[in-house]
Amino acid sequence: MPQTANPALIEDLVIANHILVNEGVLDGFGHISVRHDRDPGRFLIARSMAPGLVTAQDIVACDLDGQVHDDRGYKTYLERFIHSEIYRARPDVMSVIHSHSPAVIPFGVTGARLRPICHMSGFLGSQVPVYEIRQTAGESSDLLVRNQALGKALANTLGACNVALMRGHGNVVVGTSIQQSVFRAIYTESNARLQSEAMRLGEINYLTPEEAQATAEMNDAHIGRPWEIWKKKAQQNRF
Amino acid sequence: MPQTANPALIEDLVIANHILVNEGVLDGFGHISVRHDRDPGRFLIARSMAPGLVTAQDIVACDLDGQVHDDRGYKTYLERFIHSEIYRARPDVMSVIHSHSPAVIPFGVTGARLRPICHMSGFLGSQVPVYEIRQTAGESSDLLVRNQALGKALANTLGACNVALMRGHGNVVVGTSIQQSVFRAIYTESNARLQSEAMRLGEINYLTPEEAQATAEMNDAHIGRPWEIWKKKAQQNRF
Amino acid sequence: MPQTANPALIEDLVIANHILVNEGVLDGFGHISVRHDRDPGRFLIARSMAPGLVTAQDIVACDLDGQVHDDRGYKTYLERFIHSEIYRARPDVMSVIHSHSPAVIPFGVTGARLRPICHMSGFLGSQVPVYEIRQTAGESSDLLVRNQALGKALANTLGACNVALMRGHGNVVVGTSIQQSVFRAIYTESNARLQSEAMRLGEINYLTPEEAQATAEMNDAHIGRPWEIWKKKAQQNRF
Amino acid sequence: MPQTANPALIEDLVIANHILVNEGVLDGFGHISVRHDRDPGRFLIARSMAPGLVTAQDIVACDLDGQVHDDRGYKTYLERFIHSEIYRARPDVMSVIHSHSPAVIPFGVTGARLRPICHMSGFLGSQVPVYEIRQTAGESSDLLVRNQALGKALANTLGACNVALMRGHGNVVVGTSIQQSVFRAIYTESNARLQSEAMRLGEINYLTPEEAQATAEMNDAHIGRPWEIWKKKAQQNRF
Repeated sequence: MPQTANPALIEDLVIANHILVNEGVLDGFGHISVRHDRDPGRFLIARSMAPGLVTAQDIVACDLDGQVHDDRGYKTYLERFIHSEIYRARPDVMSVIHSHSPAVIPFGVTGARLRPICHMSGFLGSQVPVYEIRQTAGESSDLLVRNQALGKALANTLGACNVALMRGHGNVVVGTSIQQSVFRAIYTESNARLQSEAMRLGEINYLTPEEAQATAEMNDAHIGRPWEIWKKKAQQNRF
Repeated sequence: MPQTANPALIEDLVIANHILVNEGVLDGFGHISVRHDRDPGRFLIARSMAPGLVTAQDIVACDLDGQVHDDRGYKTYLERFIHSEIYRARPDVMSVIHSHSPAVIPFGVTGARLRPICHMSGFLGSQVPVYEIRQTAGESSDLLVRNQALGKALANTLGACNVALMRGHGNVVVGTSIQQSVFRAIYTESNARLQSEAMRLGEINYLTPEEAQATAEMNDAHIGRPWEIWKKKAQQNRF
Repeated sequence: MPQTANPALIEDLVIANHILVNEGVLDGFGHISVRHDRDPGRFLIARSMAPGLVTAQDIVACDLDGQVHDDRGYKTYLERFIHSEIYRARPDVMSVIHSHSPAVIPFGVTGARLRPICHMSGFLGSQVPVYEIRQTAGESSDLLVRNQALGKALANTLGACNVALMRGHGNVVVGTSIQQSVFRAIYTESNARLQSEAMRLGEINYLTPEEAQATAEMNDAHIGRPWEIWKKKAQQNRF
Repeated sequence: MPQTANPALIEDLVIANHILVNEGVLDGFGHISVRHDRDPGRFLIARSMAPGLVTAQDIVACDLDGQVHDDRGYKTYLERFIHSEIYRARPDVMSVIHSHSPAVIPFGVTGARLRPICHMSGFLGSQVPVYEIRQTAGESSDLLVRNQALGKALANTLGACNVALMRGHGNVVVGTSIQQSVFRAIYTESNARLQSEAMRLGEINYLTPEEAQATAEMNDAHIGRPWEIWKKKAQQNRF
């Protein structure tokens, strides 16, 4: 339950919602969650609302079956199964972001593969898988990950990766902390923009797999640096 | 007459004007209307002015022949016939937006067809028709829908669709509420941006017609969510 | 001298400087002038400074030979000859803007021709000439229109047109009022963005010459509408 | 030590940090330095932090071996060797900027060469070299210039140029003052955007080498003009 979670964690989750809106990763839709600090079988997430408006009062706890536990009777997002099934499949994951991050959408609907073009996005690694919901839900779904089966299929596509694209929908990004998942979501969007642009200029010299790994590890040591300015900017824009 | 219309409806119409400017759908031109809640033969629209400056005092009532009924003698836009003729032809339509939404213009002047690239824009359906004013007004018009005949031709092109492009001019979007038409106008612009980008990356895997319909219905249940953040952002920018 | 010019004209000139910065036409460089309301042989322009910082106290008068007449000894831009020679050659012109408007630059350095893609930019007409300074200044100039001979060559290239591009430099836009030249400068930039985008989608169906003329005349009747919102936005951004 | 450096120089360095963030050259990463006004063997730079948050209290002095000299025990960026080795190799250089300036990244990872497309970027000259860190650090580095050897290799690639790209990483820009390096960093980004766009329209008519040199010299005489508006804009955005 949110009242028993670390208040500092809830505060970071609220700020993360605002940062992701302010940096153009989320608009009126999308969500970020963090695994509950006292119960690995639960995660914290906002109730069903626009992420730019989330406050600490709007955070609820949800278990890995997708059941919300909230004294006030709040509900959360239909697509909570994105979060619950990834937390179930990936004990290493502490934060999950689902967004419609705009520059990434084109990579999910074409044959172009998203790959790390610079050192900020080494976490993309050697593979960014694409989740095709038609394989599970058929040809006439509403594309939402609205139940456990669809969540499991998505978690399966994600595998051990940090990012998976969702065809015609958006993407999911995971991290070992709120700060890391936010960093990755912002630089996934950035990488998509840069890669699209570079593909028009010619053949791209991508990071080698070893460079991708080395830069990812290096960046993990500096994740606090951009967090501070993203936070300041979001606050100045009065989120 | 506006004084007899529901004040909450007028307030939403004013906010919608500001949202559409703040989200980049309207600039100094374009307009949104809503069908009068007490008289289906009339609609509410701002007088002839920049949409970003509209207040409740600027709303007038107009009938389906394009006649303004206003005690103060206010006029409205020359292109009011876009609205009047669509309300006449489409009893299901409760709100109409005409914009010069920038990313959409290129689709109206080339052979490229606007199609739903992701679940937010399923409402585009399987067809987005293009209105060619030359077929009615000839080769030397000023492109404005400035009379009933041109309005009827546009309504005829729109047919049962939610969106129609206007060659060399802009587009028209309809909905069953102000909130729905605003949602559709914003995501029409978004879809155009994403589709242009994706077309450069390769062959696009669009939504199937069934997916388009299912996602459109699903989104209709969540239209209030982005409205709240769009409203907050417009107000913060002091419109 | 500025003190004898109509204060309302000077105020509009100051606001126009701020609008053009706020709308992305000018950055730290570029300038707008207006013909003096009491002396057609002089024009009003800011002294040599960033246009976003211009106040009424910074406006000076300059004659058609490029001589500044200012009791305070202020100087104006090196490129004042763009203005003086166009005012000399074109008695119909009341306002001149020189900018490095970004989307337009690519059309000045390639074979692509800027043409009116929609009704807002009918004023581009059937021809937007490109000024090649190498024809007058040779292959090693600094590209500035820094004397009368270069100004005359530019005015000659402009001819009776409303807009001329300057290769590797920017463009010049003229109008019969400050409001009209500002309108044209903003929609020249807009047209360039839209046309670049549309050229990637396929063959463009441009306005016919007759449509261009009809839309230009029609827009002239509505130039006050966007001016009010551009002014409000510039003021809100505290220029 | 910063307390002995000219306070006006420190103030300019702080403002330059904020300007570069506000103009989109820096995000949460990147840095600008200036050579110490009383000791050419040292330079001033912020401690390891987001540039948008830098204040005068955060400036430290660093020598050309990359040793920080600070009574408070502050550290600076890992990549300080970019700065130290360029100051060592180039006595003419008084300010260095390292950024991940987004539009420039694609030119560092493809065969496309960055060249001056307009008079604002004549300082790019006839060659913008690309630094390939693999030649010194091998195929599995984290791409950071984290020691003297890598800094020397980068300085060697830069040679007598004003700008060098860093493959998969960003770029470095140098100048004879803070104002000049800021000007060059902003217009390097601008040139990349314009050149990418123009390359899609057709063959580009670039500045001749003589025009590049003449425009670079001319712009050096006007560097104070945009600085004032960039400063005002950064301050208005509350950096």
